[in-house]
Amino acid sequence: MRFLHTADWHIGKTLNGFSLLNDQRELFKQIERVAKAERVDAIVIAGDLYDSSIPNETAVRVLNGMLKQLNLVDKFPVLAISGNHDSAPRLSTGADWFSFQNFFLQTSLEGAFNPVVLEDTQFFLLPFFGIQTVRNYFNDPKIKNVDLAMQRIVAEMEKSFVPDKKHVLIAHFFAAGSKRTADSETLIEVGGLSPVSTKTLAPFDYVALGHLHNKNALHDERIKYSGSPMKFSVSEAKQEKGMWLVDTDPFQVKWIPLKPVHDIHLLKGSFAELAKDAAQQPTDDFYDIELTDQGRIPDVLNRLRAYYPKIVALHRTAFAQMTRNQANTKRAQAAPLDLLTDFYSETTGNQLSPTQLKVAKSTLSEIEGSK
Amino acid sequence: MRFLHTADWHIGKTLNGFSLLNDQRELFKQIERVAKAERVDAIVIAGDLYDSSIPNETAVRVLNGMLKQLNLVDKFPVLAISGNHDSAPRLSTGADWFSFQNFFLQTSLEGAFNPVVLEDTQFFLLPFFGIQTVRNYFNDPKIKNVDLAMQRIVAEMEKSFVPDKKHVLIAHFFAAGSKRTADSETLIEVGGLSPVSTKTLAPFDYVALGHLHNKNALHDERIKYSGSPMKFSVSEAKQEKGMWLVDTDPFQVKWIPLKPVHDIHLLKGSFAELAKDAAQQPTDDFYDIELTDQGRIPDVLNRLRAYYPKIVALHRTAFAQMTRNQANTKRAQAAPLDLLTDFYSETTGNQLSPTQLKVAKSTLSEIEGSK
Repeated sequence: MRFLHTADWHIGKTLNGFSLLNDQRELFKQIERVAKAERVDAIVIAGDLYDSSIPNETAVRVLNGMLKQLNLVDKFPVLAISGNHDSAPRLSTGADWFSFQNFFLQTSLEGAFNPVVLEDTQFFLLPFFGIQTVRNYFNDPKIKNVDLAMQRIVAEMEKSFVPDKKHVLIAHFFAAGSKRTADSETLIEVGGLSPVSTKTLAPFDYVALGHLHNKNALHDERIKYSGSPMKFSVSEAKQEKGMWLVDTDPFQVKWIPLKPVHDIHLLKGSFAELAKDAAQQPTDDFYDIELTDQGRIPDVLNRLRAYYPKIVALHRTAFAQMTRNQANTKRAQAAPLDLLTDFYSETTGNQLSPTQLKVAKSTLSEIEGSK
Repeated sequence: MRFLHTADWHIGKTLNGFSLLNDQRELFKQIERVAKAERVDAIVIAGDLYDSSIPNETAVRVLNGMLKQLNLVDKFPVLAISGNHDSAPRLSTGADWFSFQNFFLQTSLEGAFNPVVLEDTQFFLLPFFGIQTVRNYFNDPKIKNVDLAMQRIVAEMEKSFVPDKKHVLIAHFFAAGSKRTADSETLIEVGGLSPVSTKTLAPFDYVALGHLHNKNALHDERIKYSGSPMKFSVSEAKQEKGMWLVDTDPFQVKWIPLKPVHDIHLLKGSFAELAKDAAQQPTDDFYDIELTDQGRIPDVLNRLRAYYPKIVALHRTAFAQMTRNQANTKRAQAAPLDLLTDFYSETTGNQLSPTQLKVAKSTLSEIEGSK
């Protein structure tokens, strides 16, 4: 059995207002190409198919088209679960019909105990769950955290283990020892922060996880996050994105990197340096910029966007520090006319015209005189 | 070929804040029972499956369960289209998988020209459409109204007619000569008010329409609205609800009434009469009440709800008329203390206490004295 392990597609996500749908479509094509080239027997998607519990109509159309392509056109068996970003009832619409075509979409805890058998492997599809759901299912109020919940779930799954089969768990949670780094991994469920111990997951030959977007969040030979197929936030800028190609017999896991369509770059420099370097940088990529200039730069974001149209964050640490240290002192000493001209140029990006300057001077003298 | 023609299920609809889901579940069971008893070969649902383009999760779960029951459990072929209340992209999620199990759900104009053939019949599934979609499809800006659009659509469908088959159209629009009565048939599309001529529909052996909720909206032997399975507004209170049982050969149409779970009643009478009759009326039904009393009745709606908990509308024609005719005259002549005590009892439902009355009297004398 050879399968692809991917997760966290977050179809419909935007990055600081920029739609990522075209990038998501391109990355989907890469995933599809790999699946074909590697002749996989199945594709596993470990939750967070959508970015939102109420995805917009375009996102619905796009994800539906992708799943149709993989399953109905390319004829790959697909195994998917709902993540914390998905609405289980919305995502599961039609799931009962999907399974006739080897598309197994599990959104309920009940269904997790009924494994999908493909070739030599039993797949257990466990959607994202709240602890209360597990308490209700086992009628046991003593289940106090996610790891205890998971111990009960795994014990229940083991009852269905067929000994001469491999056992793969597909799940969406926070595993102990893994590092959360990205702000796009927002947890909806209160209490969802408590981790599942990797020991609890020992009975499985492989655990295909979703939730954390970084494949390096956890280092374990058989328990892995695939991470998201693309960078969804500045905090993910330095991560390599991709998916796992898993063989069950003999067991082997191989990392398949995916090529970003529009990368996220972290740049640091003065306005002049950044303006000079812009010609060497891809125009359509996303930029997180740290400006090293200490002085005020009027209308700085719009002026930088002339060079880097898709700036998603701008930091001015040096300027902020200078401002904190000196601004109050400076302002107290400055002449009213200087304060006014500075303020004007800072907010509008222009200098006062001769007429404006004349009116400003005479008005200020008048005010001074009337004191 | 024998099929049931129903439409306008509006799953998730509320009536003046009262959920109708339980009623909708019960009516679904009646529909299912009829389908089994009459051994139909298919079930046609002519649009407006949901009440909203973004149905809530419960509505999603309920409709999905109903369709699963009819199609996957009972094994009925199901033919359905999107109506003006449905979101076509949301409703169509999974439709490509449905068709493998003889559940044909059409939400796009393109798909309408590819008939579904079941036994002796070609079914053309035409979802609710905007004129611009038809203009784009035929690349013809001269299509100015819905009837012209429909003429083009029908001509295009006729190209696929197989002569020795029967031809049934499933559609969701306003047909000429039909009467719109109900306020629950809200039109979303501007321009959607222009009607389709019944002449345009002549090529079909039967036209199964959705949109208007009253089966009597149109009188035509072969072009019929099934109406909704239940009353969705006070304006539908006097309508008999049900669906059509259609045989194609020999052609025959039979009306199958559905029994309301909680009916809507129109009552007229004085407060005293209505209070007296309440014991004879079903407590859980919906009531539209016209009060004939001319005088003020403090806190009247809450007091009536003690007898009729589910009042969806209250009219006070006689009181309003009396008020219009006399109130101004009366008020101008009334003493300030009478106005105050009337106002107090009308708004609170109680009389002024002796202390309140004392304070009111002394305050009013003070005001009078200070004039």
